[in-house]
Amino acid sequence: MLKIPPHQVAGHKAGNGKLGPLVDESGRFYKPLQGDERGSNELKFYTSFSSDTRIPEHISKFFPTFYGTQLIEASDGSGLKPHLVLQDLSIGRVNPSIVDIKMGSRTWAPEASEEYIQKCLKKDRETSSLPLGFRLSGIQIYGNKESGYWKPERTSMQNLSAEKLKTILKKFVSSNTSPDMNLQPDCAFAATVYGGSTGILSQLLELKAWFEDQTMYHFYSCSILMSFEKELALEGKNPGGQIKLIDFAHVIEGKGVIDHNFLGGLCSLIKFISEILTAPNEHITEVVPSVNGVN
Amino acid sequence: MLKIPPHQVAGHKAGNGKLGPLVDESGRFYKPLQGDERGSNELKFYTSFSSDTRIPEHISKFFPTFYGTQLIEASDGSGLKPHLVLQDLSIGRVNPSIVDIKMGSRTWAPEASEEYIQKCLKKDRETSSLPLGFRLSGIQIYGNKESGYWKPERTSMQNLSAEKLKTILKKFVSSNTSPDMNLQPDCAFAATVYGGSTGILSQLLELKAWFEDQTMYHFYSCSILMSFEKELALEGKNPGGQIKLIDFAHVIEGKGVIDHNFLGGLCSLIKFISEILTAPNEHITEVVPSVNGVN
Repeated sequence: MLKIPPHQVAGHKAGNGKLGPLVDESGRFYKPLQGDERGSNELKFYTSFSSDTRIPEHISKFFPTFYGTQLIEASDGSGLKPHLVLQDLSIGRVNPSIVDIKMGSRTWAPEASEEYIQKCLKKDRETSSLPLGFRLSGIQIYGNKESGYWKPERTSMQNLSAEKLKTILKKFVSSNTSPDMNLQPDCAFAATVYGGSTGILSQLLELKAWFEDQTMYHFYSCSILMSFEKELALEGKNPGGQIKLIDFAHVIEGKGVIDHNFLGGLCSLIKFISEILTAPNEHITEVVPSVNGVN
Repeated sequence: MLKIPPHQVAGHKAGNGKLGPLVDESGRFYKPLQGDERGSNELKFYTSFSSDTRIPEHISKFFPTFYGTQLIEASDGSGLKPHLVLQDLSIGRVNPSIVDIKMGSRTWAPEASEEYIQKCLKKDRETSSLPLGFRLSGIQIYGNKESGYWKPERTSMQNLSAEKLKTILKKFVSSNTSPDMNLQPDCAFAATVYGGSTGILSQLLELKAWFEDQTMYHFYSCSILMSFEKELALEGKNPGGQIKLIDFAHVIEGKGVIDHNFLGGLCSLIKFISEILTAPNEHITEVVPSVNGVN
């Protein structure tokens, strides 16, 4: 029985007659192959990457498992359509907190069409991609049984200043998750989610070491998905903080050069998370008004 | 007695009635303050940086010492003009081999004027800046007393492929310095110039560690100058490989974010140099035609 993924924070969504991904109960995620070259490019990437013996296991674990393609009934009712069959990253999660971070100050490859380059460049300049090296593409933060999720408008998260971005990344690991941006997040779970030998920072550093060396792929417009289970954190258990890379429609060959664009953004993200771990209660001097659209 | 710097490989040059930098015999380098905001911005940077107590000494050594400004007779005969007074980086060098590497895949700050952004973006796309994360702005490689310097046209060095760029960085530390791009460089001095605990790679790694952490400055359109003394290498002595950062007309405040653009390019450069040290005699399979303008 296929259904709409309950925890999707970014990208095209199924439902209301629209085409989007579906999940089943066995832990598989069905992503419709985009009809244009993005679809064929993403399939090419998964096919190549999943059989590439040069990828060490401690790196391939950061990517969704690829099970091939399958014709299934599309969510928009248009009949059988080819879908990528991938690992459902939220399987086993009950109330996951999730943030989707689109990496790189540049989301376009030098080889892309002029029209596409201009469209991406405009967006990169209008969002935090250019100044910060990445932008938030979507977020949901679980509060508790009463409050449920805080899921701000995506557009309100894409152009954050450094200070506001840091507040959001603190809120992500806090027990006080009111939408009020003036409330200081308590960072109650920073140490267990971001910190520790298996926490998110350690995983980002593992990924960084690989990006400093690998010259096989350049990951334009790819996202890092960070997630954890807050209820486990509240119970004092390991909240299972993890990172996964997703969205490979614009991956190109590295041709002997490292992906300095992704790597730069990754180092920027690492710096933010390191600072939160080092000084979780650092006072923010900037006056932070409510973020537009989050009320 | 002021004279034209004998070892300048990039930038505006004095002589023939043109405005450019001058040097004296005491080891000072006089750079005319550019009349527009570039001049005031570079002066602002040197003034701020040279008195910034947050810069550790193992990092400030990578920057030219700043001695203030001075009115001196301009090289174009236009009379007394304000000049930045800096350390002459080639003092003590007899026949230095030098390469000027303009860092970053993006040479423009988000805050720059639209006209300037479009001009830089065009150049970044036409050169190796976009694909490699940096471009060569100028180079001179000393051969020997008979052959003197190999100093190719700057424009022929700005848009190298990854393979050709690697060949140039190998040639830089080789004893066979023929302009013939098909000749395999022997990398005779790779270990002493690039390698070792005080070599250029170690220095680049020191710089990288600082860039992963510092959020004070963003160094747009800044260059790393790598140099060494080949005659010393030929005599089996330490050739004094060193890196220095130059050209700060487009430095802006970091505002709490790392310089992911410079850092990405730096990691790319480090990867090239690491590969040369690891496999100096690696066979290049690509057919390398003569580079335009180098004959």
